[in-house]
Amino acid sequence: MPTTHLPAATPNPAAPRSAEPQAAPLQVPRGLKGVIVTDTVLGDVRGAEGFYHYRQFDAVELAAVRSFEDVWHLMVNGTLPTAQERASFARQIAPLRHLPDAVREALPAVARATAGSGPLAGLRTALSLTGAAAGFRPVYDLDPEQRQADALAACAAVPTLLTALHRLGRGLSPVEPRDDLPYAANYLYMLTGQEPDPARARAVEQYLISTVDHGFNASTFTARVIASTGADLAACLVGAVGALSGPLHGGAPSRALDTLDEIGTPDRIDGWLREHITAGERIMGFGHPVYRTEDPRSRLLKGIARDIGGDLVDFAVQVEARAEALLAELKPGRELHINVEFYAGVVMELCGLPREMFTPTFAAARVVGWSANILEQAADSKIIRPSARYTGPPPPQPVPAA
Amino acid sequence: MPTTHLPAATPNPAAPRSAEPQAAPLQVPRGLKGVIVTDTVLGDVRGAEGFYHYRQFDAVELAAVRSFEDVWHLMVNGTLPTAQERASFARQIAPLRHLPDAVREALPAVARATAGSGPLAGLRTALSLTGAAAGFRPVYDLDPEQRQADALAACAAVPTLLTALHRLGRGLSPVEPRDDLPYAANYLYMLTGQEPDPARARAVEQYLISTVDHGFNASTFTARVIASTGADLAACLVGAVGALSGPLHGGAPSRALDTLDEIGTPDRIDGWLREHITAGERIMGFGHPVYRTEDPRSRLLKGIARDIGGDLVDFAVQVEARAEALLAELKPGRELHINVEFYAGVVMELCGLPREMFTPTFAAARVVGWSANILEQAADSKIIRPSARYTGPPPPQPVPAA
Repeated sequence: MPTTHLPAATPNPAAPRSAEPQAAPLQVPRGLKGVIVTDTVLGDVRGAEGFYHYRQFDAVELAAVRSFEDVWHLMVNGTLPTAQERASFARQIAPLRHLPDAVREALPAVARATAGSGPLAGLRTALSLTGAAAGFRPVYDLDPEQRQADALAACAAVPTLLTALHRLGRGLSPVEPRDDLPYAANYLYMLTGQEPDPARARAVEQYLISTVDHGFNASTFTARVIASTGADLAACLVGAVGALSGPLHGGAPSRALDTLDEIGTPDRIDGWLREHITAGERIMGFGHPVYRTEDPRSRLLKGIARDIGGDLVDFAVQVEARAEALLAELKPGRELHINVEFYAGVVMELCGLPREMFTPTFAAARVVGWSANILEQAADSKIIRPSARYTGPPPPQPVPAA
Repeated sequence: MPTTHLPAATPNPAAPRSAEPQAAPLQVPRGLKGVIVTDTVLGDVRGAEGFYHYRQFDAVELAAVRSFEDVWHLMVNGTLPTAQERASFARQIAPLRHLPDAVREALPAVARATAGSGPLAGLRTALSLTGAAAGFRPVYDLDPEQRQADALAACAAVPTLLTALHRLGRGLSPVEPRDDLPYAANYLYMLTGQEPDPARARAVEQYLISTVDHGFNASTFTARVIASTGADLAACLVGAVGALSGPLHGGAPSRALDTLDEIGTPDRIDGWLREHITAGERIMGFGHPVYRTEDPRSRLLKGIARDIGGDLVDFAVQVEARAEALLAELKPGRELHINVEFYAGVVMELCGLPREMFTPTFAAARVVGWSANILEQAADSKIIRPSARYTGPPPPQPVPAA
């Protein structure tokens, strides 16, 4: 494994000028892989066991029996809400779904400027705007209650921003949020202007719960690095959205669905899979950098898809079974199992979400995990600031005349 | 020093399900202080020597004898330009100063929405918008020439965005960029609508050159973390602007000038400094986390300020001398010397920049350093993704009924 180095000592403030401390290299994996940057009480992923949790609870169990708002409360406040806390939390969040006037006025122009670059670039811009319009202040200048208020405001605004940009991009007017609907149902309502079927709203809600957080992924780390400088909530979240948009971050549920489309019919499954696996191509919806097992989120989502049912679900189940078998046969020992993308795409398609909104819908859940991480980091008040090692020609070289 | 831990081994793909690898902890300083994340050929800071460099050249010497465009070319292309390359680079950059139409149309609404949160929140939003409008694509989907084109476009747009937002916030129309003026002179021109005095334009240019890059600071690290996911140039830069806005990032040259104002007159210098130093307060413009010497940037900027001259400069020189002496007397061994902020504020004030534009002006230079770092990181294609350690109650606990 390629490694970089860690000097044993940090500079001694009292050292004389010429005594730059010598680096006594310690092996650190490239990309900081496996390096533990922080402690967290927010949750973890156990890749070998196929298990992940939010605080002390199994995330899949939470998705099975709790609401999105309950899990949001858990992440941000540390406890599942009592009935009274649930009602109070709902009252706190509902008005935050409505955007500041200055943001509403700017959104049509933002939608036009970002139309060609996709909804994450739109969300990145609109969330930056919303934080500024709402007067978010540096987290280190705020007390914990004020920080939490900014975090709730940012998260509550995301579905409104995403659906407004989506509709504006199609020449439609944004739909005002409904205060009486739960998070997921209100999201679907703002997207279409129609109150959603309760089973589909619950399916999307369970998907959202299952993607609130997932260990120390690259966007979560980004949010915490920015938070560690003391920047405001929007600055942190905008960085996280940026990291999420990177191809190596992973998580693009529409790709797995595109694969199902490309295979097309049951008689083509084996041929298509054999051809692409043998060619060394990655099969979208299979394999995960951490899980060596079936992704626990896919188990949940498969159940949800089956409850809704239909030809797409039957076809997906067939493709899954053959892909598992053929990957085991053609890539033995690689442990390439189904990941969250596969049935997430199927569930979102069944619930009527347009494919370009799959990743933004993921962001509408993950923003809760990011904000909980930002609040945890802000309580630390220690900047995350590693070093680089200069490996170019020795300086100073004389500067040639211009 | 508080430490966190590094497991010796990363998970083995072939391990059986129950064999989660054991963490064999290795000491890693909190906040990754001193941990070397990457190699770089872009430059370094030698804190004990009071020296920093861009590639193989002394940064202060570059500021003394070269143009901002020459240093920009050096950072991005690796070499100081020949006369022919200089002309070609100028031709490439000039049209990029002009914003895409969709951004120009959106800026008045962005200025209104961000007016209360300051110019960095405005820049964060406007840069996000510009990248989207210009169709920036993930860096990992681009060849090096395309990446570099996006980097130049983003940097060239920053002065136009900053000055347009500043003027719109004051009810003034933005001033169109001039293709014939150098970077710094064009920046001052767009701010005021007047062609600047050459000596003041050169002073600002030298300040900008001196702040293009400065080791592996928190905003540079943020830009590289986002770049390591493969996200587009704007996603990386927007995260960096966010990190720069954090109070722990440091670098707010207006604070040192506010201190000069507060001291007010030469007869109050000693009393004011003794009172504030004895009270344990930080004296703005003194002390640096890396330099144990005079900040090499302050030497350059003091010379520039003295060349311009005037009462403010004389007063600043007196305050500097007394602060150095009193910090040595009252905080012996702490090595609290003058930093870049002190004379940077003086120079910008002398050049007519409004104080709220001091940090944005810094960003207009640093964006070149960020983009060079993003290009270097993008050539690596390895995600920067450390881990966290779960320290909460053991999961899974049964989820109580709602």
